[in-house]
Amino acid sequence: MAGNSFGTRFRMTSFGESHGPVIGVVIDGVPAGWSLDLDLVQAQLDRRRPGQSAFTTARNEEDRVQCWSGCLDGICTGAPLTLTIRNKDARSEDYQELSQTLRPSHADFTTMARYGVRDPRGGGRSSARETAARVMAGAVAAQILAKAGIHCYAWVHSVGQASMDAEAYALLDSIPYTQEQIESSPLRCPLPDIALAMENEINTARVRGDSVGGTVVGWCQGLPAGLGDPVYDKLDADLAKAMISINAAKFFELGSGWAASSGHASDYNDPILAADTSEWTHIKTATNHAGGVLGGMSTGTPLWFRVGFKPPSTVSIDQNSVDHSGQPLVLKARGRHDPCVVPRAVPVVEAMLALVVLDHWLGFPSAKIQRLLP
Amino acid sequence: MAGNSFGTRFRMTSFGESHGPVIGVVIDGVPAGWSLDLDLVQAQLDRRRPGQSAFTTARNEEDRVQCWSGCLDGICTGAPLTLTIRNKDARSEDYQELSQTLRPSHADFTTMARYGVRDPRGGGRSSARETAARVMAGAVAAQILAKAGIHCYAWVHSVGQASMDAEAYALLDSIPYTQEQIESSPLRCPLPDIALAMENEINTARVRGDSVGGTVVGWCQGLPAGLGDPVYDKLDADLAKAMISINAAKFFELGSGWAASSGHASDYNDPILAADTSEWTHIKTATNHAGGVLGGMSTGTPLWFRVGFKPPSTVSIDQNSVDHSGQPLVLKARGRHDPCVVPRAVPVVEAMLALVVLDHWLGFPSAKIQRLLP
Amino acid sequence: MAGNSFGTRFRMTSFGESHGPVIGVVIDGVPAGWSLDLDLVQAQLDRRRPGQSAFTTARNEEDRVQCWSGCLDGICTGAPLTLTIRNKDARSEDYQELSQTLRPSHADFTTMARYGVRDPRGGGRSSARETAARVMAGAVAAQILAKAGIHCYAWVHSVGQASMDAEAYALLDSIPYTQEQIESSPLRCPLPDIALAMENEINTARVRGDSVGGTVVGWCQGLPAGLGDPVYDKLDADLAKAMISINAAKFFELGSGWAASSGHASDYNDPILAADTSEWTHIKTATNHAGGVLGGMSTGTPLWFRVGFKPPSTVSIDQNSVDHSGQPLVLKARGRHDPCVVPRAVPVVEAMLALVVLDHWLGFPSAKIQRLLP
Amino acid sequence: MAGNSFGTRFRMTSFGESHGPVIGVVIDGVPAGWSLDLDLVQAQLDRRRPGQSAFTTARNEEDRVQCWSGCLDGICTGAPLTLTIRNKDARSEDYQELSQTLRPSHADFTTMARYGVRDPRGGGRSSARETAARVMAGAVAAQILAKAGIHCYAWVHSVGQASMDAEAYALLDSIPYTQEQIESSPLRCPLPDIALAMENEINTARVRGDSVGGTVVGWCQGLPAGLGDPVYDKLDADLAKAMISINAAKFFELGSGWAASSGHASDYNDPILAADTSEWTHIKTATNHAGGVLGGMSTGTPLWFRVGFKPPSTVSIDQNSVDHSGQPLVLKARGRHDPCVVPRAVPVVEAMLALVVLDHWLGFPSAKIQRLLP
Repeated sequence: MAGNSFGTRFRMTSFGESHGPVIGVVIDGVPAGWSLDLDLVQAQLDRRRPGQSAFTTARNEEDRVQCWSGCLDGICTGAPLTLTIRNKDARSEDYQELSQTLRPSHADFTTMARYGVRDPRGGGRSSARETAARVMAGAVAAQILAKAGIHCYAWVHSVGQASMDAEAYALLDSIPYTQEQIESSPLRCPLPDIALAMENEINTARVRGDSVGGTVVGWCQGLPAGLGDPVYDKLDADLAKAMISINAAKFFELGSGWAASSGHASDYNDPILAADTSEWTHIKTATNHAGGVLGGMSTGTPLWFRVGFKPPSTVSIDQNSVDHSGQPLVLKARGRHDPCVVPRAVPVVEAMLALVVLDHWLGFPSAKIQRLLP
Repeated sequence: MAGNSFGTRFRMTSFGESHGPVIGVVIDGVPAGWSLDLDLVQAQLDRRRPGQSAFTTARNEEDRVQCWSGCLDGICTGAPLTLTIRNKDARSEDYQELSQTLRPSHADFTTMARYGVRDPRGGGRSSARETAARVMAGAVAAQILAKAGIHCYAWVHSVGQASMDAEAYALLDSIPYTQEQIESSPLRCPLPDIALAMENEINTARVRGDSVGGTVVGWCQGLPAGLGDPVYDKLDADLAKAMISINAAKFFELGSGWAASSGHASDYNDPILAADTSEWTHIKTATNHAGGVLGGMSTGTPLWFRVGFKPPSTVSIDQNSVDHSGQPLVLKARGRHDPCVVPRAVPVVEAMLALVVLDHWLGFPSAKIQRLLP
Repeated sequence: MAGNSFGTRFRMTSFGESHGPVIGVVIDGVPAGWSLDLDLVQAQLDRRRPGQSAFTTARNEEDRVQCWSGCLDGICTGAPLTLTIRNKDARSEDYQELSQTLRPSHADFTTMARYGVRDPRGGGRSSARETAARVMAGAVAAQILAKAGIHCYAWVHSVGQASMDAEAYALLDSIPYTQEQIESSPLRCPLPDIALAMENEINTARVRGDSVGGTVVGWCQGLPAGLGDPVYDKLDADLAKAMISINAAKFFELGSGWAASSGHASDYNDPILAADTSEWTHIKTATNHAGGVLGGMSTGTPLWFRVGFKPPSTVSIDQNSVDHSGQPLVLKARGRHDPCVVPRAVPVVEAMLALVVLDHWLGFPSAKIQRLLP
Repeated sequence: MAGNSFGTRFRMTSFGESHGPVIGVVIDGVPAGWSLDLDLVQAQLDRRRPGQSAFTTARNEEDRVQCWSGCLDGICTGAPLTLTIRNKDARSEDYQELSQTLRPSHADFTTMARYGVRDPRGGGRSSARETAARVMAGAVAAQILAKAGIHCYAWVHSVGQASMDAEAYALLDSIPYTQEQIESSPLRCPLPDIALAMENEINTARVRGDSVGGTVVGWCQGLPAGLGDPVYDKLDADLAKAMISINAAKFFELGSGWAASSGHASDYNDPILAADTSEWTHIKTATNHAGGVLGGMSTGTPLWFRVGFKPPSTVSIDQNSVDHSGQPLVLKARGRHDPCVVPRAVPVVEAMLALVVLDHWLGFPSAKIQRLLP
């Protein structure tokens, strides 16, 4: 009811504010006997961190994951697994000024309407810093899925007008890029030319004090056919919820959904190829406009989708707004702010994808979980 | 876990197959003392029915709602409310032929992968006929919301290339069309010229034996600021799940999300106007690109979003597929089939919208529910 | 939130009032492929029915189970399974008189406090007739468990002062009575002498216009060690909730709990016998005071517990009460009423036991469910 | 599914092992705006701690509550509230010896059956130390209820054969003892003579190396009539689950349930007194055998119930058992161990009671929560 938990079988509860002492997550449902790899969790946190660049080894000590329960000598016991990172000390004076200001397109006044009180220090729970909890839980989910041969990826598909070609994905039966290609630019766009164009979009916005939106592709392969619980807990419905729950996410599209909504079945149906039906997972289709889900259940072909993020709302352009008493003011953000969030959203999309897929997978071919354990 | 329930406070459980005896819904959480208006439920069922046209009064007796529990002398008792409609007798011979065929872009083989068995008669649970359960529950939710001054609408925004202008919605602070305008064409598009273009799109597809996709706008006004449970059960996240759970829905976009993902904050931030903050519901914004939700909570301005539907997968064009044993075949649908579903999706979108909003509203300014009752 | 569903993996939602048209249940989570035996469901309904006596074959047509969804040609499809029985026509005039009376120790005034309205016809949802929904769902659960070698039983342990010996159960490693022995008296007490004493207790109460309480033992054997989800969804905690949710149930005792609470560990600890620990299910204990659960998880030895039922509140002795406007009155029930409910509670206890055990079992050694299906 | 959360509207998730770094709880659903009193939380922790005695002020620094999220400057923000206490450093050598031993009547072998791995250090999650998480959450719940005029109490009713009179409670319409009387003996029994007899029971057991069971009464007054969600989430059913989920709890009895199960309605029905029915909360009954709940909903009279605890399983008497490989051994506990747990169970019973009542109350006369806040 209160909104800070996600999942049923692999259930994570997130806690902590942007400028409180910690951001943390309690995960209930980690398979007992699992050898937890905290380095993989740390690696995903590092990808999410502000100020990072790809493949750097000089890691400072920020956002270090700590484990508080659920794991003994590296083995998960089946008890709730609690992971946290420390927040840097809040410089509360920075927010004093904003504590009475309602920033446009932020959650300030809706928070007041919902709760009657707000933590003005860095946005409190509305801060994107909360996504660190998602990344920690998702990194645990992803390592379990990986051992089952299921892999979750994401990359930046577009920034502003600089965009890759979405239609191309429908023609593929495996992921088109390696993790190295994705990480080869700070944009997390695997195509160097387009990555360059994206950088230009961002720099242009930054110079103007503006910000720019973008889209991220999520991709999952290796998952068996049949995951999903129609008619309301469909795999794609759960993915849509997971993705739209991410800060600044404003649309979700499964497969060729956007194009198909203005097109014809003759172009967007996926013909079924001759197949071995002794196991239903072996059905293949000539194309994958469906995005790997039919009737709310996985097809066994790659799952792919796009998530759209609005431009970050904090800009250093003058904006009309009001204060807590309703008096008009002109707001102009000062100091550093991020003109584009999508590269840092990549590990968050991966995390939410892994959480949804594992939650369904744990309820499905359940025998397999035992084969994963020593 | 099993996927056939939706909502928490106002929780509906759907049952029945396309060619079983009934389609039904049990609703747990209807406020005790509520005067149920079954005519409003029937009116929404009529809008969903195949073969209907707008404002017709000659109603045949199909899809008549019946109440089995939870209501005594027209007053809801707080007990589970059960509503059903009868299915027409299945002509099972029609489906004999298809019972071993895997139809492209349908749920046939994913159903086999998930359940190992399928009801071939009209798609079983995967049939769009299940949406009648949603419409019944949604029509109960909508009448409760209406008494609280909250109104849910939907209309057809585009069919194929024929489209209204999405950006225009961001400039409005109330619904642009009356229910009469929406129902004035069988397309449920309130603009006559565009409705005509949509008809052309559909007829062109029909003649070719093809089908065409489209989009529906959902709109809710009157809801107070602050509905939604961050960080995972955000109002927009729950809407996304609700909409993507509808048959053939492939994308969800909140407000100007699609455009904003390739644009700038200077164009898509919504400036805040001078306002009476003694109640947070009175905050106004100059534009509504946000679609009525910030930080996962309603802003008090209209909620608006788009849902995209793929072209119906059943077409009378030859399609390559296989049978249950994996042998190739060429499938060609015969008889009547619907070349476009979006007009009939309108009441379904309205229903899911009402279910999500009421579920959040019942947990929010809870005092108000008591004011609604005699 | 609204209280009419039970279970998570095997989730049943009950609907219908005592004098509405039907009592029904929707079960979500029935394993697809399961061959449903409706005769077994009917047999349990027959045991629950008023007016029945043991082993009678002349069955009248009351309380006939009907299936509305989820089953095609006898095979469950994985869709929600809906079962109902018809209610006899309400003789509403019988309840007219009571509609303004608050009966002592009934739910009349708490229903008004909770809902502000009540269905006076036979108690509405508070009627024990609702337990027919539990029995239908439980009979489906029990047949699935039976195929896995898990069997649920119940019998009458005491009526008034006539009682069997609870301590004896702690010494047993399998059920002490056959189903035939249990059904050999209308009391459902397997010991003829004590059954006779129970009949005397009931007859004595009846003659006085009074009623008498009793206890039922629940017993489950064949379940593997390790079922239960500490620390809050323990197997015994879920059983306690299930049992206390039954009409008129007022206490729940696991194993020798009552006696142990005034005794010593030297008498109530269960020594562990030499055992094959290659599978943890093979651990044996010398006694079973624990009742088959340790730390909230099944031990693999029989599960046993007692449920206590208060005397039925409807009696034909004068009772002081008030009407809806608070005016004093003297209530004296007329006509037939049941001076003891425990024999009819036996199939209800079995049903709730089966629902709890199956719900846990479906999440546990999950591989096995697939071995049960063809 | 995974069992470490409790409640729906006021939902707590417990984490931490007996000898891990912390025991903690995340509470989702604390009303925003609430002024958190951590001293009251600490006071309840102090009552639960081992080695404490009543009304001592010389507090050592153990089990100090710390707040990690959800509270800013003493005001709850509506974000998840996280509270922890530190564990003392584990002396792991103490448990080395026991790590391969299956202790009788402990959760050792059921944990192996359920999880395949166990944390031998002090019982891990099965340790009663986990109840500190319950006490922290319960102490938050209790302070919210207190402001609404609802108060939760518990005391020791019996130890071994030394017992107070349960029937007396049915005659009372308010709590018979003050908190001071309850705390006046280390036994938490308010009657000095019986407290002395209880001490004798404990000392006798201790001298023999044995342990003794006991019962605790829970009492709640001030709650309005009508709390509870029939037919499965009845108030008493939820209480039963809450109580039986406590370590070593083996029976739950509502009101005069045990006695009523062998008695007659003429003795155990509660006559209704003339009353003001303009508000249903004002109904009074001559007696309260019901224990404050009818039909699963509160009556507005005091809620009272008993919970029975078995004797602690760790004793210094020789016990037959086996090790992990199934080899027989004789176990004899060494060092300090608690011959009776019921005095320390008192704050745990109060905590679980407060959690259940608040969870229902938050969904009920919802307006009131807003009146509690500034």
